[in-house]
Amino acid sequence: MTNNQLTENGHLRHFLTIEGLKRPLLTEIMDHAEQYSSLSHRQVKKVPLLRGKTIVNLFFENSTRTRTTFELAAKRLSADVINLNISTSATSKGESLLDTLHNLESMHCDMFVVRHNQSGAAEFIAQHVAPHISVINAGDGCHAHPTQAMLDMFTIRRHKQHFPDLRVAIIGDILHSRVARSQIHALSTLGVGEIRVIGPKTLLPSDCKTLGVHVYHDMEAGLKDVDVIITLRLQHERMEGALLPSAREYFQCYGLTDDKLSIANPDAIVMHPGPINRGVEIASSVADGPQSVILEQVTHGIAVRMAVMSIALGAQSEIEAQS
Amino acid sequence: MTNNQLTENGHLRHFLTIEGLKRPLLTEIMDHAEQYSSLSHRQVKKVPLLRGKTIVNLFFENSTRTRTTFELAAKRLSADVINLNISTSATSKGESLLDTLHNLESMHCDMFVVRHNQSGAAEFIAQHVAPHISVINAGDGCHAHPTQAMLDMFTIRRHKQHFPDLRVAIIGDILHSRVARSQIHALSTLGVGEIRVIGPKTLLPSDCKTLGVHVYHDMEAGLKDVDVIITLRLQHERMEGALLPSAREYFQCYGLTDDKLSIANPDAIVMHPGPINRGVEIASSVADGPQSVILEQVTHGIAVRMAVMSIALGAQSEIEAQS
Amino acid sequence: MTNNQLTENGHLRHFLTIEGLKRPLLTEIMDHAEQYSSLSHRQVKKVPLLRGKTIVNLFFENSTRTRTTFELAAKRLSADVINLNISTSATSKGESLLDTLHNLESMHCDMFVVRHNQSGAAEFIAQHVAPHISVINAGDGCHAHPTQAMLDMFTIRRHKQHFPDLRVAIIGDILHSRVARSQIHALSTLGVGEIRVIGPKTLLPSDCKTLGVHVYHDMEAGLKDVDVIITLRLQHERMEGALLPSAREYFQCYGLTDDKLSIANPDAIVMHPGPINRGVEIASSVADGPQSVILEQVTHGIAVRMAVMSIALGAQSEIEAQS
Repeated sequence: MTNNQLTENGHLRHFLTIEGLKRPLLTEIMDHAEQYSSLSHRQVKKVPLLRGKTIVNLFFENSTRTRTTFELAAKRLSADVINLNISTSATSKGESLLDTLHNLESMHCDMFVVRHNQSGAAEFIAQHVAPHISVINAGDGCHAHPTQAMLDMFTIRRHKQHFPDLRVAIIGDILHSRVARSQIHALSTLGVGEIRVIGPKTLLPSDCKTLGVHVYHDMEAGLKDVDVIITLRLQHERMEGALLPSAREYFQCYGLTDDKLSIANPDAIVMHPGPINRGVEIASSVADGPQSVILEQVTHGIAVRMAVMSIALGAQSEIEAQS
Repeated sequence: MTNNQLTENGHLRHFLTIEGLKRPLLTEIMDHAEQYSSLSHRQVKKVPLLRGKTIVNLFFENSTRTRTTFELAAKRLSADVINLNISTSATSKGESLLDTLHNLESMHCDMFVVRHNQSGAAEFIAQHVAPHISVINAGDGCHAHPTQAMLDMFTIRRHKQHFPDLRVAIIGDILHSRVARSQIHALSTLGVGEIRVIGPKTLLPSDCKTLGVHVYHDMEAGLKDVDVIITLRLQHERMEGALLPSAREYFQCYGLTDDKLSIANPDAIVMHPGPINRGVEIASSVADGPQSVILEQVTHGIAVRMAVMSIALGAQSEIEAQS
Repeated sequence: MTNNQLTENGHLRHFLTIEGLKRPLLTEIMDHAEQYSSLSHRQVKKVPLLRGKTIVNLFFENSTRTRTTFELAAKRLSADVINLNISTSATSKGESLLDTLHNLESMHCDMFVVRHNQSGAAEFIAQHVAPHISVINAGDGCHAHPTQAMLDMFTIRRHKQHFPDLRVAIIGDILHSRVARSQIHALSTLGVGEIRVIGPKTLLPSDCKTLGVHVYHDMEAGLKDVDVIITLRLQHERMEGALLPSAREYFQCYGLTDDKLSIANPDAIVMHPGPINRGVEIASSVADGPQSVILEQVTHGIAVRMAVMSIALGAQSEIEAQS
């Protein structure tokens, strides 16, 4: 019944998945992010909050972009950052993953930011780390990408005050998207009025009903009356596989063009987790248009990651104070 | 008529090329560098000037050496540094260059240090970045390498007080050298008495006359009475191509040996931008000899880059104060 | 007669090998490490001792693990760190090693941490650097790995007060191990009562007698009455070569199992420099068992490297004060 992301007192220790977290915690993250967000307009965009802490970017899957956002967030909190690309590291010397982790723990690191192409990797690591370590999931397989979901929620809250009044549509490859999965959990926990997913049958998960989302295979019906449109990145692997006819055909059916956008509410915002495939999941005119908040998402990504890092490491000092 | 490197008030915002900059600005850079130069003799070689600023090394062409000098300069100004090797990054995921740039802007980075193998790349980036970003050209194709030229000017000023009294000879592959091009603009702007280029016809540009330089194909004539000798690095690609007979023959004609050096003024200084091909463009005895200031150039490179970074980001705070 | 690792006043300038260093210096390193060790339990695990100093990790041989420990040690002393993987750097542009070194010196770096697959590389570099540079050997070929040996000594001292009373056994490929070589020198300098090496004839050096160690080819005899057991990593190259039958057979003869461990004194501690080949040189039950101090070694590695860095750079300021 207890959530293994939380300490006994209900504070955030790890951040692995949105699933199972309560609304006040998601709100707390957004409220903290609000503070860090104002920081970026100051001359010195830095606070000494995590000075002396060591944060390790443990990337088993290459992603310069995501690593950079975590590295910037950590440095703006004054933490020391170690970047480890594990594929080229000790494990190639035959050391097991757990031995690598225990070594890093023994070096008095405080936080592991984990990116892995296998679902459940961050959770596995969190189960095995020493009590003084926090684990942040920076994307694991098709499972979860909770900081991405939280920066999306933060972006929505900035534009649309009240979650229960909203209709949100997520378009694309829901089936393989850790981003979509985390977004659906977050939107649902925050009490969003109606969550829709739009995509071809081959790219929608079979458990849509249990997730509490409404399924559309057609953009015209799916976009009607929505306030927030989230487009997803189409992975190149999928385009080459049997699940999809071609990028061009995908764009014709599910690409977000100005025409299709006009079906939604006139003040609807358009989001995308990046990097964008222009002309595949979204037209350039929409991505760069007045309703797009895609670059705001990037900006908020730093503030939200700073919030998660500082909350999780705050929980840690609570643990230490008790012991 | 206005220079796109300058703010409306004439302050340096970007540093892309020496061409078009006025003498007082070049002098300002050297005067600032003079201050940073004295810093390196202190116990703590660091000033808090750029604390909280984020400087991104955006290297599309690998150059550990140049990246290290910019990284050190930024760290000694207390900035946070992010190193991005773009060939292995987001653009390989199909993201366009401009999308990568706009993402970094949205993360509230302050400066891009750009290295690219295509002429004009830094200028292209400067044209497209947000108003709060400064761009420093760390070498673009055959076009320009302005911080290298300024560290050369600083080194000359340290040894030879008065630019108008000087005769300066640049030896080698002027045609393909961004370093030579930037040096010629800088020497000319600072009013150097006589600028000479020495090299085989195949390696000299056709616009030498319009650049205001004197052309020599013969070392004996070219080195007579000069005060400063700048040898250039011979790119290996050239040696293998049809433009040159062989490294050995090149050395016989244009390699700077003790004999040839003795043609110049007895107090002439010898420079090279590094890395040196010993026995190709310069003899080891000259490179390591008493007239060589090659390692001083490296030292001054840090101070000059600190100067350019702090001036450009100072100009930025001026922009912010206005808006 | 003088040791080239020491200044004229007998202070540590370089740290290249344990050989030739006196007992008080090794004790000084351990005493300093004791202070840094307590630091890691504080909220802010950082001291401003080396603020403004630049430490370069000069790795000619890839070792993420070792690099990380030096990087963390340097950052916790507030130094700036530059990581250079030399195989992919300037030397590939045809620049000589010495030119690379002289360039880094000219950038006012303070310390080179050198890892190289050739014995003597760190010493060669130390002989050629400018007077203001300290060189730390982070492992050179089969020669030495002095910081590893010192963290081992520190770990032993934490568990076993008095070195002269101890019997220490080192098991495995002594012949090719820089770790073993440095350990033997350190144990011997600290006056350890009896040093034993255990391994097959093909993996023991011929100069065992002159090193003052007792040779055993049999675990039963070799482990009797020992207080400290050091297992060494078996390099995969060896396993594939003609020197050894197979990893499995090695484990049967020389792998440390619970059974074999029971031959030693009941309070014997078990050590390994990592990374471990589980089931080759040590059984998992022993590596993770109550007598294992393997992860403590990792922890102490940071403190010992902080000690060596601060002592060596302290010696440097002494030099500067004199000149």
